[in-house]
Amino acid sequence: MAIRIGIFGYGNLGRGIECAIKHNPDTELVAVFTRRDPATVTIQTEGVKVIAADDVLTMKDEIDVMVLCGGSATDLPVQTPELAKNFNVIDSFDTHARIPEHFANVDAAAKEAGKIGIISVGWDPGMFSLNRVYANCILPGGHDYTFWGKGVSQGHSDAIRRIKGVKDARQYTVPVPAALEAVRNGENPELTTREKHTRECYVVAEEGADLARIEKEIVTMPNYFSDYDTTVNFITEEELQANHAGIPHGGSVIRTGTTGWNDQNKHVIEYSLKLDSNPEFTSSVLIAYARAAYKLSQAGVTGCKTVFDIAPADLSPLSGEELRAHML
Amino acid sequence: MAIRIGIFGYGNLGRGIECAIKHNPDTELVAVFTRRDPATVTIQTEGVKVIAADDVLTMKDEIDVMVLCGGSATDLPVQTPELAKNFNVIDSFDTHARIPEHFANVDAAAKEAGKIGIISVGWDPGMFSLNRVYANCILPGGHDYTFWGKGVSQGHSDAIRRIKGVKDARQYTVPVPAALEAVRNGENPELTTREKHTRECYVVAEEGADLARIEKEIVTMPNYFSDYDTTVNFITEEELQANHAGIPHGGSVIRTGTTGWNDQNKHVIEYSLKLDSNPEFTSSVLIAYARAAYKLSQAGVTGCKTVFDIAPADLSPLSGEELRAHML
Repeated sequence: MAIRIGIFGYGNLGRGIECAIKHNPDTELVAVFTRRDPATVTIQTEGVKVIAADDVLTMKDEIDVMVLCGGSATDLPVQTPELAKNFNVIDSFDTHARIPEHFANVDAAAKEAGKIGIISVGWDPGMFSLNRVYANCILPGGHDYTFWGKGVSQGHSDAIRRIKGVKDARQYTVPVPAALEAVRNGENPELTTREKHTRECYVVAEEGADLARIEKEIVTMPNYFSDYDTTVNFITEEELQANHAGIPHGGSVIRTGTTGWNDQNKHVIEYSLKLDSNPEFTSSVLIAYARAAYKLSQAGVTGCKTVFDIAPADLSPLSGEELRAHML
Repeated sequence: MAIRIGIFGYGNLGRGIECAIKHNPDTELVAVFTRRDPATVTIQTEGVKVIAADDVLTMKDEIDVMVLCGGSATDLPVQTPELAKNFNVIDSFDTHARIPEHFANVDAAAKEAGKIGIISVGWDPGMFSLNRVYANCILPGGHDYTFWGKGVSQGHSDAIRRIKGVKDARQYTVPVPAALEAVRNGENPELTTREKHTRECYVVAEEGADLARIEKEIVTMPNYFSDYDTTVNFITEEELQANHAGIPHGGSVIRTGTTGWNDQNKHVIEYSLKLDSNPEFTSSVLIAYARAAYKLSQAGVTGCKTVFDIAPADLSPLSGEELRAHML
């Protein structure tokens, strides 16, 4: 019998989860939950119900793992602990500074209910975090580097859209090639924020808007752009749709370190991703960990976990024997 | 109190383990065991005993984890199950085809003794295997590629050295550049074993040895060479020391796959290593997993495990709280 999945929230991530379920035959979509009027939400999977979020408990016994697809700012801090009272849950909570607090809330709720919750699953946090831990354990005393992109940053795109006179915008984070090269060569450079990434903005302005003012507001914006070399390109709405409709992303986690009695030997460990769709890749990671949540729940494990606590075998539909015979 | 480590076998890998212990302050070297006359073996760590392998049981209560540093062809299949009767053990068994059998032998011995054994630890098998599993779970239906090198394969060099008439040997595994390029571009080429790598052998023969026979034994050796284009170069001992003294290695595990309702989005996951010293890097991985073996043994886990069964957090000297706060 397939693992019965519920999707809680149907935006980019929820649609990605639906696609990931299609790619994993040992999982099955049971229901999509939405805070909108369910009658207005059309999903791709035939024969699957869209249910009002408020009625989620009617499906308490029909769902093995609930995948939460809300935002980290206001949705997940409330929804994940709340749903963990009745479901095994998994989320992609990505506000790094608030992870310890979120973990504690989900852990308390899940333990009391005898459920499992896996939080902060995706690629960063998620696969990038994992690779930082593995590489740190192998090369203690080394140097860590994370480069993001080339890819679309939703937060930075939103920040540009909030500027007066801006109709739409897309912001790409781009690693500086020379910095990446120096790190890969094991030179252990000390890099400032500006030396690691540049920011490329594609902006659709409203008719008659003051382009010089918009550009200045972007490049001087504190936290978002002022610490970076930022380029601003004004384009038409048609160009934005034609050339910048996708949500690609990616990046590299690199650790360099030394071994040997006198640290005479250098090593470089790199994990890198090139993604056409950030939300669909994140969803694919979430579904693999949903499988783990199901297996661990069946084994009686309760409480909150992160990717650090899950053995790789638990992500796989293959048995231990199959993994050892074919993947080791 | 530090984790008390024993090293069983003091070749390249054993010396690497000694260095890795120096880099991990929560571990401590207790003894080195050798089949040679202990008086002839000098180690780097001051105040640590070298003990005859036959006397290993005298240290039964002094060692938390025994790291086995013998070869996969004849040493480990016997030593790992035998030592698992009295010690928590960890090895780097790398004969892929015989892993299921080795697992079963170690599992039976370790379970009966209430010990834990972790086998096939290193980078391949090991970190590469892990990354294959993670990437397969994230992108089902994709394509896997593993490239090794350019680098010296210890297993293959050992295999040549065991041939009659061979005094010393060094084998380089070399990826075919065009194949690597096609894979990174997401072209999903179908590559035979032969199209992916070549094998270059540098062999010092004993005086008067039958070179034609040695070459034939190398290129026809099953599992190791018969599926590759292999070149054999006979050189002098001096040339070997001058030009082939290092033990570099590395490689890349790449998985490509698609997401989206109609598989319209492509993704590339790559894990790559550039290593100055293969045995020292392998040793660094082994010590991280020795830490996990210790933790799991303390938690009452017994039997044989592989890297697939170990959660990343168990490799780390950091607590769960520290990992979540700083690494997630």
